[in-house]
Amino acid sequence: MNWWETDFVSVRDNRLIIAGRDATALAERYGTPLYVYGKDRILDRYGRLDDAFTRYSALPGRISYAMKANPHMGILRLLQRRGAWIDAVSPCEVETALKAGFPAERILFTGTSVSRADLRFLFGVEGLTINIDAPEQLDLMSEVRNGFPGRAIRVSVRWNSGIGRGFNPKAITAGKRSSDGTPIKFGVEPRKVVDVFARARKLGFQPVGLHQHIGSGWVREDYGMVLTAVDRMIRKAREIEKAGFRLEFLDFGGGFGPRYLKSRGLFPVEDYIAYISRAVAKAGLSVKALVIEPGKFMVSDAGVLLLGVEYVKESYGNLFACVDGGTFNTVPRPAIYVSAHHEIVNASRVDGPHKARLTVAGNLCETGDVFGRERLMPLPQSGDVLAVLLAGAYCRSMASHYNLRPIPREVLI
Amino acid sequence: MNWWETDFVSVRDNRLIIAGRDATALAERYGTPLYVYGKDRILDRYGRLDDAFTRYSALPGRISYAMKANPHMGILRLLQRRGAWIDAVSPCEVETALKAGFPAERILFTGTSVSRADLRFLFGVEGLTINIDAPEQLDLMSEVRNGFPGRAIRVSVRWNSGIGRGFNPKAITAGKRSSDGTPIKFGVEPRKVVDVFARARKLGFQPVGLHQHIGSGWVREDYGMVLTAVDRMIRKAREIEKAGFRLEFLDFGGGFGPRYLKSRGLFPVEDYIAYISRAVAKAGLSVKALVIEPGKFMVSDAGVLLLGVEYVKESYGNLFACVDGGTFNTVPRPAIYVSAHHEIVNASRVDGPHKARLTVAGNLCETGDVFGRERLMPLPQSGDVLAVLLAGAYCRSMASHYNLRPIPREVLI
Repeated sequence: MNWWETDFVSVRDNRLIIAGRDATALAERYGTPLYVYGKDRILDRYGRLDDAFTRYSALPGRISYAMKANPHMGILRLLQRRGAWIDAVSPCEVETALKAGFPAERILFTGTSVSRADLRFLFGVEGLTINIDAPEQLDLMSEVRNGFPGRAIRVSVRWNSGIGRGFNPKAITAGKRSSDGTPIKFGVEPRKVVDVFARARKLGFQPVGLHQHIGSGWVREDYGMVLTAVDRMIRKAREIEKAGFRLEFLDFGGGFGPRYLKSRGLFPVEDYIAYISRAVAKAGLSVKALVIEPGKFMVSDAGVLLLGVEYVKESYGNLFACVDGGTFNTVPRPAIYVSAHHEIVNASRVDGPHKARLTVAGNLCETGDVFGRERLMPLPQSGDVLAVLLAGAYCRSMASHYNLRPIPREVLI
Repeated sequence: MNWWETDFVSVRDNRLIIAGRDATALAERYGTPLYVYGKDRILDRYGRLDDAFTRYSALPGRISYAMKANPHMGILRLLQRRGAWIDAVSPCEVETALKAGFPAERILFTGTSVSRADLRFLFGVEGLTINIDAPEQLDLMSEVRNGFPGRAIRVSVRWNSGIGRGFNPKAITAGKRSSDGTPIKFGVEPRKVVDVFARARKLGFQPVGLHQHIGSGWVREDYGMVLTAVDRMIRKAREIEKAGFRLEFLDFGGGFGPRYLKSRGLFPVEDYIAYISRAVAKAGLSVKALVIEPGKFMVSDAGVLLLGVEYVKESYGNLFACVDGGTFNTVPRPAIYVSAHHEIVNASRVDGPHKARLTVAGNLCETGDVFGRERLMPLPQSGDVLAVLLAGAYCRSMASHYNLRPIPREVLI
């Protein structure tokens, strides 16, 4: 069995099977390039988190899907019916979640550089909870609130504990600076948190929660640091309770990733949920719910991008599998994140004797438009189908029409 | 005068003026975020190249706009009326150029990983010239051509001379590998070029030109290397002529950039055109036209992105100007290219006594979503308008709806 096989993608007769169906038959039927998402795999991911809360937590767990990972309507509806909550980051995301059937009460809006226009929209959605990213955002909220007299508005505070953790400098979202020196724009720094609660209440908002999100793409190696961040959050929650506030929920954000690379160990998400649950219970907090915000974990490895090989090119001794899609239009992660890696499988012949190192070259006029560099695989033939794995998260949602190429069709099976 | 001032952007009464109009008034009228493009600046850029050909070249110069830089319909129509040609890289770009009024005879299609579907579309456009990126592409062309009996199809060959030059590994488009090790997918390697001409003719295509494009974002420091690439191209053209082919044109591609940074010298584009013209004349080639493909040069510094400042945030000692747009939706270059830099000007108060270092933070849930890091500028006030300069090229065309945020409106004035 290959390291990347799951109940969603597997191999039969040397061909790639996606959710029980032959990948090349899917490509034939719907055309390439094509995103294929698997309902069962998504529900399985949800179930794992849900089970962990049931097993380890005395408090209800809210599994709040970070829809920026993939706002496909079918996926949203699936998760809505299953009882998920939503992590939304823009007015249009809130609107889309409402359309998918999520009640506003199950949506937490977490913005940054939030505008007056954003707030006017958000205050109009009764029942929504709005995360405060900055003390200065509260001034704007106070200003815009005058247009909504008598409206009860639930708020929480996103704080920045000083600890960040992610697979890449661009995926570290807490601390003073990221590992490449970028000042971190998110959250309220520790010494200001209680004051933001006090001012929010004074201004007539209902402060109900504390939130953090320290980064993303965690693997096993990140576990220790992540637990330290959990401890800090719980200490801060106690401080807030002592200052006279009742917290309805603690939201630990997202961050735990799937396995993009063979060499990486999976983040122990069950242990993580158990740890949070125990720590909150031990601290004697009066919170009523625990929240996590999975995005990648929920949909990454429930999605595949299928590409057709048009021809194999040889130039200066390099071999290229020339495919009918471009990265920016389909799987932009390798173009944006230096260390992003997507496994690529020849769906038409998964294994074989004539292996070679091929660079999978997209159809955009960009040197960086390669899905993978010098990957060992059976030499493809014109007409073969290549599958780019883990294409369920931050692929379609980041895709552009660069070079005026279309964004592929999506099917949820 | 500030180093970035031009006839398009300037300062009057300490406010930014764009094409003669107050930037804040434009922001007020059309809303922010907003792309503003300047017709006169674009025509001025075109004029400089046109004048250089008139002055230095005995052969007509074809100024072939690389529309992937910015396929805005108004810009295309403007350049079409002025006599420009088009460098198109996808079927939809060809379609868009035709809609803008370009005759097919003035369009050169330069694809990579070209598909059968692409070719079926392209062969249907009579008069178009198709650049061959690989010997293996020719096999596909031969296969698809059976559906177009009797149709005369003009082709040229994009070769890879082995010399690449660009501002970033992702912008080096020739050579064996880019500076970060990525195998270069573009073009036909030198030893195969004449054979591709011969096979193309044998297969019934009409080979009419030789093309190269070695990279982009050139500044003064790149000039020497670029001339070496010109020399190689001319030697190759002689070899092709000696093998019995008549070349109608030599296309030297794009690459010469505008000035993104104060510290960089401008690429001497007039000298470049003069050099090419002299070298071609001296070589005694029978070509009838010279081609260049400016994209960035034509539109980069003819565009500005206006952003509204919602609030100024202070966190861990860092200052942030929190603006109402996100990089991925507007100016994605800094997120994609490590060394991409865009000057940012406070349009409401260009200079002032209370200067501070601010990170201009977009509204996306991404640490890398900053337009500029720790830029020295007069401390903005809520409601100020910031202008991101050189936003005319590879900004709108690379923008996505990430976070389900809208892509801004564009105005051409």
